[in-house]
Amino acid sequence: MTVSPRPQLERLAQSRRQPLLVFAGQSNRPLAQAICDNLGVTLGQSKTEKFTNDNLIVHYEQSLREGDVFIVQTFSTPVSDAIMELLLMIDAAKSASAGRVTAVIPYYSYARSDKKDSPRISIAARLVADILQEAGADRILTMTLHSPQVHGYFKVPVDHLSADRVLSQHFKSCVPNAHEGVVLAPDAGSIKRASQIARRLDSGLAMIDKERLSDTEVRPRALIGEVEGKTVFIVDDEISTAGSLVETVNIARSMGAKDVYVAVTHGVYTGPAIERIAALDVTQVASTNTVYVSPEKIAASNGKLAVLDVAPLFANAIANIHTGESVSTLFE
Amino acid sequence: MTVSPRPQLERLAQSRRQPLLVFAGQSNRPLAQAICDNLGVTLGQSKTEKFTNDNLIVHYEQSLREGDVFIVQTFSTPVSDAIMELLLMIDAAKSASAGRVTAVIPYYSYARSDKKDSPRISIAARLVADILQEAGADRILTMTLHSPQVHGYFKVPVDHLSADRVLSQHFKSCVPNAHEGVVLAPDAGSIKRASQIARRLDSGLAMIDKERLSDTEVRPRALIGEVEGKTVFIVDDEISTAGSLVETVNIARSMGAKDVYVAVTHGVYTGPAIERIAALDVTQVASTNTVYVSPEKIAASNGKLAVLDVAPLFANAIANIHTGESVSTLFE
Amino acid sequence: MTVSPRPQLERLAQSRRQPLLVFAGQSNRPLAQAICDNLGVTLGQSKTEKFTNDNLIVHYEQSLREGDVFIVQTFSTPVSDAIMELLLMIDAAKSASAGRVTAVIPYYSYARSDKKDSPRISIAARLVADILQEAGADRILTMTLHSPQVHGYFKVPVDHLSADRVLSQHFKSCVPNAHEGVVLAPDAGSIKRASQIARRLDSGLAMIDKERLSDTEVRPRALIGEVEGKTVFIVDDEISTAGSLVETVNIARSMGAKDVYVAVTHGVYTGPAIERIAALDVTQVASTNTVYVSPEKIAASNGKLAVLDVAPLFANAIANIHTGESVSTLFE
Amino acid sequence: MTVSPRPQLERLAQSRRQPLLVFAGQSNRPLAQAICDNLGVTLGQSKTEKFTNDNLIVHYEQSLREGDVFIVQTFSTPVSDAIMELLLMIDAAKSASAGRVTAVIPYYSYARSDKKDSPRISIAARLVADILQEAGADRILTMTLHSPQVHGYFKVPVDHLSADRVLSQHFKSCVPNAHEGVVLAPDAGSIKRASQIARRLDSGLAMIDKERLSDTEVRPRALIGEVEGKTVFIVDDEISTAGSLVETVNIARSMGAKDVYVAVTHGVYTGPAIERIAALDVTQVASTNTVYVSPEKIAASNGKLAVLDVAPLFANAIANIHTGESVSTLFE
Amino acid sequence: MTVSPRPQLERLAQSRRQPLLVFAGQSNRPLAQAICDNLGVTLGQSKTEKFTNDNLIVHYEQSLREGDVFIVQTFSTPVSDAIMELLLMIDAAKSASAGRVTAVIPYYSYARSDKKDSPRISIAARLVADILQEAGADRILTMTLHSPQVHGYFKVPVDHLSADRVLSQHFKSCVPNAHEGVVLAPDAGSIKRASQIARRLDSGLAMIDKERLSDTEVRPRALIGEVEGKTVFIVDDEISTAGSLVETVNIARSMGAKDVYVAVTHGVYTGPAIERIAALDVTQVASTNTVYVSPEKIAASNGKLAVLDVAPLFANAIANIHTGESVSTLFE
Amino acid sequence: MTVSPRPQLERLAQSRRQPLLVFAGQSNRPLAQAICDNLGVTLGQSKTEKFTNDNLIVHYEQSLREGDVFIVQTFSTPVSDAIMELLLMIDAAKSASAGRVTAVIPYYSYARSDKKDSPRISIAARLVADILQEAGADRILTMTLHSPQVHGYFKVPVDHLSADRVLSQHFKSCVPNAHEGVVLAPDAGSIKRASQIARRLDSGLAMIDKERLSDTEVRPRALIGEVEGKTVFIVDDEISTAGSLVETVNIARSMGAKDVYVAVTHGVYTGPAIERIAALDVTQVASTNTVYVSPEKIAASNGKLAVLDVAPLFANAIANIHTGESVSTLFE
Repeated sequence: MTVSPRPQLERLAQSRRQPLLVFAGQSNRPLAQAICDNLGVTLGQSKTEKFTNDNLIVHYEQSLREGDVFIVQTFSTPVSDAIMELLLMIDAAKSASAGRVTAVIPYYSYARSDKKDSPRISIAARLVADILQEAGADRILTMTLHSPQVHGYFKVPVDHLSADRVLSQHFKSCVPNAHEGVVLAPDAGSIKRASQIARRLDSGLAMIDKERLSDTEVRPRALIGEVEGKTVFIVDDEISTAGSLVETVNIARSMGAKDVYVAVTHGVYTGPAIERIAALDVTQVASTNTVYVSPEKIAASNGKLAVLDVAPLFANAIANIHTGESVSTLFE
Repeated sequence: MTVSPRPQLERLAQSRRQPLLVFAGQSNRPLAQAICDNLGVTLGQSKTEKFTNDNLIVHYEQSLREGDVFIVQTFSTPVSDAIMELLLMIDAAKSASAGRVTAVIPYYSYARSDKKDSPRISIAARLVADILQEAGADRILTMTLHSPQVHGYFKVPVDHLSADRVLSQHFKSCVPNAHEGVVLAPDAGSIKRASQIARRLDSGLAMIDKERLSDTEVRPRALIGEVEGKTVFIVDDEISTAGSLVETVNIARSMGAKDVYVAVTHGVYTGPAIERIAALDVTQVASTNTVYVSPEKIAASNGKLAVLDVAPLFANAIANIHTGESVSTLFE
Repeated sequence: MTVSPRPQLERLAQSRRQPLLVFAGQSNRPLAQAICDNLGVTLGQSKTEKFTNDNLIVHYEQSLREGDVFIVQTFSTPVSDAIMELLLMIDAAKSASAGRVTAVIPYYSYARSDKKDSPRISIAARLVADILQEAGADRILTMTLHSPQVHGYFKVPVDHLSADRVLSQHFKSCVPNAHEGVVLAPDAGSIKRASQIARRLDSGLAMIDKERLSDTEVRPRALIGEVEGKTVFIVDDEISTAGSLVETVNIARSMGAKDVYVAVTHGVYTGPAIERIAALDVTQVASTNTVYVSPEKIAASNGKLAVLDVAPLFANAIANIHTGESVSTLFE
Repeated sequence: MTVSPRPQLERLAQSRRQPLLVFAGQSNRPLAQAICDNLGVTLGQSKTEKFTNDNLIVHYEQSLREGDVFIVQTFSTPVSDAIMELLLMIDAAKSASAGRVTAVIPYYSYARSDKKDSPRISIAARLVADILQEAGADRILTMTLHSPQVHGYFKVPVDHLSADRVLSQHFKSCVPNAHEGVVLAPDAGSIKRASQIARRLDSGLAMIDKERLSDTEVRPRALIGEVEGKTVFIVDDEISTAGSLVETVNIARSMGAKDVYVAVTHGVYTGPAIERIAALDVTQVASTNTVYVSPEKIAASNGKLAVLDVAPLFANAIANIHTGESVSTLFE
Repeated sequence: MTVSPRPQLERLAQSRRQPLLVFAGQSNRPLAQAICDNLGVTLGQSKTEKFTNDNLIVHYEQSLREGDVFIVQTFSTPVSDAIMELLLMIDAAKSASAGRVTAVIPYYSYARSDKKDSPRISIAARLVADILQEAGADRILTMTLHSPQVHGYFKVPVDHLSADRVLSQHFKSCVPNAHEGVVLAPDAGSIKRASQIARRLDSGLAMIDKERLSDTEVRPRALIGEVEGKTVFIVDDEISTAGSLVETVNIARSMGAKDVYVAVTHGVYTGPAIERIAALDVTQVASTNTVYVSPEKIAASNGKLAVLDVAPLFANAIANIHTGESVSTLFE
Repeated sequence: MTVSPRPQLERLAQSRRQPLLVFAGQSNRPLAQAICDNLGVTLGQSKTEKFTNDNLIVHYEQSLREGDVFIVQTFSTPVSDAIMELLLMIDAAKSASAGRVTAVIPYYSYARSDKKDSPRISIAARLVADILQEAGADRILTMTLHSPQVHGYFKVPVDHLSADRVLSQHFKSCVPNAHEGVVLAPDAGSIKRASQIARRLDSGLAMIDKERLSDTEVRPRALIGEVEGKTVFIVDDEISTAGSLVETVNIARSMGAKDVYVAVTHGVYTGPAIERIAALDVTQVASTNTVYVSPEKIAASNGKLAVLDVAPLFANAIANIHTGESVSTLFE
């Protein structure tokens, strides 16, 4: 999946949409820089500041006229600021006569709010999709939405990348006999993702059945399937405080799992997450760099954290969108 | 859940939205009539015809001015006609100055097209939601969407009824010791629904892991969980040709299930469905009347088919929408 | 009007919108193929299927990124399926990043529902226009709308082709002294079209005055003008069951018409149409191929049916839209 | 059709939309006043001025909060000012929190621009409909649109009144044996209207076939039907300079018409119209008061002009819209 | 301006929009409570939480069906969270079938971003207006927008309250001979507001002319007008860090001002504001409670800070909006 | 600022948007011609007429397919006609398949209606922006909006040119020691513009404080700042009847101004304007040609009127928009 910038540049020059411009908000500039490195282009000049009344202002420091603009912004803490900044960047780009604006949102956090679990709440995944489009987004590029239906909350075209290949290749490289292991879904919501990884590994599948007691309380009912004596691969879309992960690992351990590997797309790692992972009885916890993981966090993880690079995937998708080549043929 | 029409009428008269008008397309008039009977109102007069060039025309035969209009139309064969008729009815109602138009869609068939399984297809569940709203639908009342995320494809308010209570009460009435049984999800997509029924029955849970080989071919990989010697409750959102059901039952049987009960919300029963069910090694297959099941089908099912009435649920929802009372408190 | 594919190809290559892609729904693939032959391009690969619950699914089997996409779909029986399939094709094309999508609708059947003949009906010609645009149609290419005002039901640009030249040239080729004949409009609604054909033939004009008794019943009041001893040319926009045609011919005959020729744009021919035409006292009934007329129908028509090819007209219009040349200069 | 204000007031008080407010622009305040008199309400206080830079400003001088607002504005010379004033009145009413705004446009002049007669023109009837809705119009009430299809240019509900009954009753009151006469349509576009009047009179029908030579030049080809020795009733939607009317009358006279009566809905009477009518060989030219006809014009018409009052029709329609009763039952 | 809750309640009961519901986000609950106290209603039950991934979730804990909902949310630090929370509350209210949703935004901070001071920035005041409406806001109630033109960024009705009377009455109560003083505008942008206050005080007027050197640097050029020996009233729309205020006061002092009073609508008081004010050579700095000012800030201000209550103004506006009475008559 | 057409043409040929087409309405064709001369292109062929019922019709006499269309129309008397004509031209261009339509509105007169000075009026600057966009305008190019916030009333990109440099250079060329003079703002609303000119001249600044007594009456309260013995430069956005200008000059004179120069962007000059200016005690009154000033007006002005050419500014802006170069770098 390494991408050689040189042929990329030649390819990009063929597009009738010119110039290709990649900008980044404040949320994950290292990923944006890595994407640009893979593309062989320079990260665009823009400046984000806060006025003294806490209002954000974004200023592009180069012309965007007719440009094919990609704005990289992940929805990590502080999420509301990340969204507001992205809205301002899209709106400013459109009114500065950008030819097309693609919002590149590696981690679309609000995808989790995708249904009415309880009455009188917002399906915020739809709401955020609506306001991004109202601001002027012409396309969306994202990765591993919490549920694939969220794709349909956007009226504009969406390229929805999957980290499944990256995660399963990682498992295979760690565990030679991965096909003897079992993929464990932490709950019913992640069973489809787990099933797909299991097929890639040619391994078994298991699931924990959980019961929601209240808005914030969930209780495991049973582990369905077999993990005893096996290497267990826990996969999910994201880890935040790692509270649910600890529970899943404990259940797997209590059911006799031999060893445990964890891999998720979005390593959000908030609150006590790193501390918990450092103490966790697992071999490794891997995530991609859709959310920025600081060297401090890695250092504090007791050697457990691994970060997998998806910049080449995003760079290839951007290149293909820019040149009008099929994205589906590349990544599936 | 029996509804006495008399107090309904008094309650309905309190609404500041007057009059309450219930109309029906051609797709499931018996259900519409049953809903009206529960409400104590007369089914509205409308006429649908086909011109000689196969165009549909709908004509309301009574004034709708300022009315609180509910149009009952389920998406059963022929589905395209059902959708076109509903669009025409909504549009005609709006331009005839209806005060509010609620599309009552007991079975929203396109909810199945809720994601991009393969490239270059339509997320038709969103598309159909968009055109219903473009035609002028102010609200939606529906039941058991294939995935709960489809709720968010509508920008207008949706009341999304669940048949879970009806289905689980049915199981309990059939099998006294239901809590000793196990609920079996036919695939990963139905595990959440199965898990909820399992909690209502206080029973076990199992799932069949399937692998999609192509657009039309799916292969079971494994049954996860335990069914041996147990009463198995298979639950799903819909049955059409019953092909997948036959397979699920066979797997359950081959794994030693004691006896098998099936219950789904939407009994579509197309093609060889009835023939297959008549020959199936199950005690009973139950569905609700969101889709009309003819007496002929029931007669041909070898005593297997049961139809559960959800008209009272819809009637109550309509009454509460009309009077502005909470729908959530009623049905959860 | 023959179009040589070779220079077409060179001309098409000049467009800055690339590539030119022509797809077809199921309603009239022979016409779509003929259009492609005239253009010198290959008909695009797409697949339409019905799920077992009667839902449609459309799948494009080649990349559409940035393409200038034309989707050929006529609204013939089953019309609701034709519309749903077109909506799905437009939506799928847009979400697959097509650069522009033009709906090519040779026969826009709902143009007949263009006014409120009676209260509380839908002006369905506007409704269908709205949902096509909601689905994402960027342009429309069509022929002989029932009334020219329907053009304005679309907000997006419409190229509205006329079959007048094709029909009048056909009459001239059949009847050398066409200018001695009289063009007969079957009712007031078709008088303008008849008047235009009359000017092209330099012939006389007559009209039947009809009275609408009910939604389905119409009664002729009088034939206005002179047809006695003359060749009569009956022109209309469409024939479906031919019931009205039989009546028109009978009136013309009873008023002393020498011989009768019929030509319409859209030969829908439903129900008893072919049988009636076979028995009709006319020399010939001609229509274009906007609606597919099967060899079986022609064979059963007792030598009466003629089909005029408008594929070159559509091909030229598509070529000009693609290259940005004026469509009006070509066809008026 | 006389309307007694007293029962009107009692009826209006039943509406849940309160208060009923009728305002008028500058274009036809006498009609607005007559409508109010029929309704038994006071014409609302508003003020329209021009700034020194020719900008219009409209100011409502009473509260509109939650009101059911009707704004009477006909599109007579100066038409652009009439449209701008109406847009400003609608927008100001909406932003002043009117509950509902109905634009009452007795003469919607741009209905004439309802198709693409030539390439690269605007279908202005649709454009004006769009901007009225963009400004915030919730409903439209109008009379005798040039073609009934214009109804569909509005997405909001339209009540489209007909003057047919008023005109035909007028003919009957002038000519006792009206059924022995013949209704003459000045061109193909007005044949449907003429046919409907002919049925109301139980009379004959004739038409002049015209040929458009250029944008501004039209040449009559023939009179189709019989007028010799008969009383001729010429009906049309509007008269502006009366140039076309003079021609129609001359043709009728040259074909032996006994006497000629003219009646149109919209008496625009611009330029040399009055002078021409005064000199015209007709018994009478009648129009309704959708456009204001000054006493000076009537005085100068040599006793030819008659004005028929449609204020009761508009008042009844407004009352029924306000109270939610059917408009169709009243006027058809 | 004291409001007695008792007659309010009786008045509110007259509205045909029922029930009146007032909710509040987290940004200024004391103001929301004070508004409810003035209205004599209970503050609605809602709950806002943050998921572990920093996503917000809002949950209404009572039915909103058909309700006339007012959501009080000021845009104070953290502003992005305040906006996201408001969007979620609006969306959840609409989808929970609220009859009407009014966003009450006492301090609309982004009104400051109302023009393109430099190229390639967002006019964020319009953007935020657009997304509030996209989320479903039916009306806006706000106070002292930075410029009155921001009103027009909303398409929905806006009630724009002014604090001018509150501020000028405050000055009069502090300084008996206020008419001998001079109102000083800190820059050209606030001259209109200063001029209006000057007229209310019948006092003189002066202004500081400033020059923008860069995005963040501004330099005073001159004080235009006379302040020597006079009481100076500095008025502005908001104070955040008080940096500009310190400069204005210093200039006034250096030009011989006798004593200085400051009053602004929005006391944002961020960063070193309180410290600076405590040390400032002014008699008093007053602001309203559109932004919450904590007792700690007041205590630390060295007796300088005064807070003026605008809850009665908001309560009256809400009552009049609810009952459909004119807001303009009340507050101008 | 002279523009050499030759290099322009070469530059324009680089754009991927072809062809560049400039059309003009009737309001200021001399300016449109001058812009075309600067660009080195031919003014497009279009024809505007009035039907006999006072309806406007616009006809493009050349193909616009895929063209980059600029329509020059200023909002001068008759303003309503100018707006309607522009709407028709935009709509006709879009439906004739123009690739992009930019409305070039040198004088956007309704920018003055930018706020709610009194209740129940329209913010017409927003309304006109909305209808221009509804008609299909993709971009706006304008000059000196009454307030810069009006920019935000458009959702589409706006290039907002300033005449400040033209006006201040004119002052400098007239008055060598301009920096010893003082710029006088006629009211608070023009202080920002005056301040910017003052900085360009490095001169002093003064302002007249006015009080609005009613909608039409305004009374000066005081002149703030010093003008005695100085050359006074009065700047404003527009002059219509010159009534306010006379007052401003009189005040300046009564306060001892040495001599007075006036310069505004928009010289509307209606009613008694020229007569007043001819009699006014000023050296010169200059305006740009955004509004057409006839030779007759100049001749009647007693040598006072000067017209400054902004066609090069508009030509450069159009060229840069067409080629996608930054407009900001050119004009700031």
